[in-house]
Amino acid sequence: MENVINDLVGYNKLKIVQNNNYFNFSLESILLPRFCVLRNDMKIMDLCTGNAPIPLVLSQYTNSKIIGIELQKEIYNLAKETVKINALEDQIEVINMDVKEVLKSYETDSFDLITCNPPYFKYLQSSNINQNEIKSIARHEMKITLEDIISVSKKLLKNNGSLVLVHRTERLSEIIELLNKNNMEAKRIRFIYPKEGEESNLVLIDAKKNGKIGLKVLPPLICHKEDGNYTNEVLNMFER
Amino acid sequence: MENVINDLVGYNKLKIVQNNNYFNFSLESILLPRFCVLRNDMKIMDLCTGNAPIPLVLSQYTNSKIIGIELQKEIYNLAKETVKINALEDQIEVINMDVKEVLKSYETDSFDLITCNPPYFKYLQSSNINQNEIKSIARHEMKITLEDIISVSKKLLKNNGSLVLVHRTERLSEIIELLNKNNMEAKRIRFIYPKEGEESNLVLIDAKKNGKIGLKVLPPLICHKEDGNYTNEVLNMFER
Repeated sequence: MENVINDLVGYNKLKIVQNNNYFNFSLESILLPRFCVLRNDMKIMDLCTGNAPIPLVLSQYTNSKIIGIELQKEIYNLAKETVKINALEDQIEVINMDVKEVLKSYETDSFDLITCNPPYFKYLQSSNINQNEIKSIARHEMKITLEDIISVSKKLLKNNGSLVLVHRTERLSEIIELLNKNNMEAKRIRFIYPKEGEESNLVLIDAKKNGKIGLKVLPPLICHKEDGNYTNEVLNMFER
Repeated sequence: MENVINDLVGYNKLKIVQNNNYFNFSLESILLPRFCVLRNDMKIMDLCTGNAPIPLVLSQYTNSKIIGIELQKEIYNLAKETVKINALEDQIEVINMDVKEVLKSYETDSFDLITCNPPYFKYLQSSNINQNEIKSIARHEMKITLEDIISVSKKLLKNNGSLVLVHRTERLSEIIELLNKNNMEAKRIRFIYPKEGEESNLVLIDAKKNGKIGLKVLPPLICHKEDGNYTNEVLNMFER
């Protein structure tokens, strides 16, 4: 299947290069950057960047330089093309690299913000993984685990810098334990609910390196109305 | 100030003996028991029971025997009187005992459910504690810490038995870490919000002894409407 150029959902000005063999649009790509506390002139890195939707959305709200790291060559190529057709090469740089190797090329204690929409599922020999290897690597912890991501992020971040993650709510206990183990303190959490009255499926977490104890749980974020359309709160996150 | 007998808010049939020198009604006393998964013939213990509002509410939804543990003699006396005026002596037993001593009198691996509305605040020498010592002990971790409560509960509970806690949301990371350390797995969490659009102040947690990994975060519980009255969801929790 060929690469196609789509409008990024919610952002008429932005195009994204997709390939349905690998990826579909996921709302997290917008919810995560919109949850970040941004200012100008930050140093930002997006781990497991995929076709770079998070750097793309971030670029609309900060002039900061953003580096996106993607392991898989095929996906990296989509990201590269995406940055180019949006003429964002001056702001966004995508690198074809294993997250576990990043510390060989980037200094410790140098980033203000690290974002990551990581593989959500544990990888077990018995995992019912996708026959499509590229998709499987993006969804399962085959090449990188949450612990790797937190440990690398902690090293890359400046003191009090933020790691902003989205993850499956059911893994929250483990996420908090791994953060604590790495002296990363969860400071802001927001639970995402598909609809009113349903359980939370996803969670947004902002953890600070060597942060002080004390967590804020923000108001719930409900994505869809009864009729299946996005809620006004989600619609208000779209565009600049 | 003298002891007074009040209707338990939301429960016309139930009376509670209070003394405004020590305690005021708190909504958690109803939200916590209503969050528990109950059946008949359980063995239940309520730690830091105060004037026994949690056993009182629980008694309306299960025939199970409930033991309430209270350290402070003055408060224990209120609890004892409360049980008596409701004629619940056959179902609720209150004991004047330090939670840390409970294992001397009760068998390990013997309870199905332990509930606790613990002191919410860490106690530091610098803490701005209440001049009223009885109130201070109920609010600050002067005589017992969360770690003590989790560690004792873990021993008292049967395998897969539940510890149901209410606590301040800002302490969630620490709570989860202490639960994990004691092989207690948070299985159900519900965040309490004072009003729509505000941050969560309190959290309900159901953790199971040796429970399998995997957490459910239930729909948010919003307590008050814009006009300050209870929401319908809270009102529906009242009465049997």
